[in-house]
Amino acid sequence: MKSNKTINIIGTVAFDSIETPKGAFPRIIGGSGTYASLAASIFSPVNLISIIGEDFPAATIKEFNSRGINTDGVETINGKTFHWSGYYLGDMNQAYTKETELNILTKFNPVLPEAAQNAEITFLANIDPDLQQQVIGQLKNPKLIILDTMNLWIENKFAELKNVLGLVDILMINFEEIKLLTGLTNVVQAAKELTKLGPKIIIVKKGEHGSLMYHNQGYFALPAYPLAEVEDPTGAGDTFAGSFTGYLAQFDNITNDILRTALVIGTMTSSYTVQGIGIDKIKSIKKDDLTQRIQKYKEITAVANINF
Amino acid sequence: MKSNKTINIIGTVAFDSIETPKGAFPRIIGGSGTYASLAASIFSPVNLISIIGEDFPAATIKEFNSRGINTDGVETINGKTFHWSGYYLGDMNQAYTKETELNILTKFNPVLPEAAQNAEITFLANIDPDLQQQVIGQLKNPKLIILDTMNLWIENKFAELKNVLGLVDILMINFEEIKLLTGLTNVVQAAKELTKLGPKIIIVKKGEHGSLMYHNQGYFALPAYPLAEVEDPTGAGDTFAGSFTGYLAQFDNITNDILRTALVIGTMTSSYTVQGIGIDKIKSIKKDDLTQRIQKYKEITAVANINF
Repeated sequence: MKSNKTINIIGTVAFDSIETPKGAFPRIIGGSGTYASLAASIFSPVNLISIIGEDFPAATIKEFNSRGINTDGVETINGKTFHWSGYYLGDMNQAYTKETELNILTKFNPVLPEAAQNAEITFLANIDPDLQQQVIGQLKNPKLIILDTMNLWIENKFAELKNVLGLVDILMINFEEIKLLTGLTNVVQAAKELTKLGPKIIIVKKGEHGSLMYHNQGYFALPAYPLAEVEDPTGAGDTFAGSFTGYLAQFDNITNDILRTALVIGTMTSSYTVQGIGIDKIKSIKKDDLTQRIQKYKEITAVANINF
Repeated sequence: MKSNKTINIIGTVAFDSIETPKGAFPRIIGGSGTYASLAASIFSPVNLISIIGEDFPAATIKEFNSRGINTDGVETINGKTFHWSGYYLGDMNQAYTKETELNILTKFNPVLPEAAQNAEITFLANIDPDLQQQVIGQLKNPKLIILDTMNLWIENKFAELKNVLGLVDILMINFEEIKLLTGLTNVVQAAKELTKLGPKIIIVKKGEHGSLMYHNQGYFALPAYPLAEVEDPTGAGDTFAGSFTGYLAQFDNITNDILRTALVIGTMTSSYTVQGIGIDKIKSIKKDDLTQRIQKYKEITAVANINF
């Protein structure tokens, strides 16, 4: 089944210019909102809240719509779309920024259409914590709010970020950023510590090393899907969070088992994203595509009954 | 049951002077052979092959013996025992060497007692590949040879290391070193590639990120046991490899399931090692101690049946 619950995703819709050890890919479609929405749309309809310039292709917006992504909340204004240029070296574990042209993103003032105001589930992708808080203030019936952030806000808007953390249920954060946010070097400890700031559930994204979840029922640790070839890691974290959120939207009562399954789903979908350039792979993934890879993942991670 | 098969472990028996963010621990007992033997002895009797100086405490040797570690192959010569001084910072993921006093280690010329020559299973901890090859040459009935190595030999004795790789069944190697050894940045690809050099099974140790195994039946990926407190990571890799080897010694036919279980065992025992200073924890671990932690690990890593 596909959920009837439409989720909100607030994030960027952008152009990315990416260089990997294998090639250069100028001005391809990117943005945290883009990846998260495409991934979430595997499971659930999406209200995407974002901002674009007049240079953004209408065909891509149509592609979003055809995936069940409602773009009424994507404002188009005079000017150029946000453009990130960056590159990856060697193991591609780290993105290096060449240039960030914010362009119209500086005017992003998220106003939720009525349908989005009434949505129960919201994923706040990595944007300014002030804007994240502004979105939360417009929600009339929030049941589940998931937030992602990054080093930029930890370093420059720590107080604002702390405020917004008090308002959300789940924090998604990467391995290096959780250390920066907490000042702790042990990530297992940091995840537990962070629940004191508000979010009941902490999810640490570790890229090729998998992920770790903490909540009051304990830890869940899982490896990544082993890939011998990675094309472009851009958007992996947003894909992870988006499909995680979309998957959860199918359930009225979210149990620990459902959360764990959602993390496996996030792991699977992000493994597709990194196998393509930009959104090339994730834009066409359907539920059925996941079945085989999930089976394979279970084989790769299965431990026999320990007998010793 | 404890195996009747006695395994060989060739490695260093040393003094370590360690500084962690929590304290300084001068001249404690260390060495790859020490950690590996103590861990292996949970499952199997051990012939330890090493070299010490006259300054090494007889009481520690007696402690080894009481754990089922035969030290007939530990030569004592005039001079000082190998002494490594190092420190860890922050997340303690990296050991920094302050000083390496090789002392009598430069005279290490491993000669296997007859019992060791006849042993079927041998773990060659991280020593000079020439010495590793010299040990292999003395084995009369080798069934399973497991080898560990390090950046020092990859950088300075690449040809010799390559030769010895052609003679072993299983390679244990850490995450950074496999990249150095293969020149590849993708570890999943590197593990597969390495089987072309001889070892049929490659095990990549990733510390707090768990481990990865590759052989002709595919990959096995597993997370580490999440620990909110780490006291001293010294010897974690040797503990991992030692208990892995000791566990395998219990079986005549080593299946994929047994290999996977051995990796879980390695994960568990190394989680004990890092919770103590030096050998403090691992020196007294018994099989029964592992039962509860294995159960906990299974809970922490369990994925529900995926239903979507």
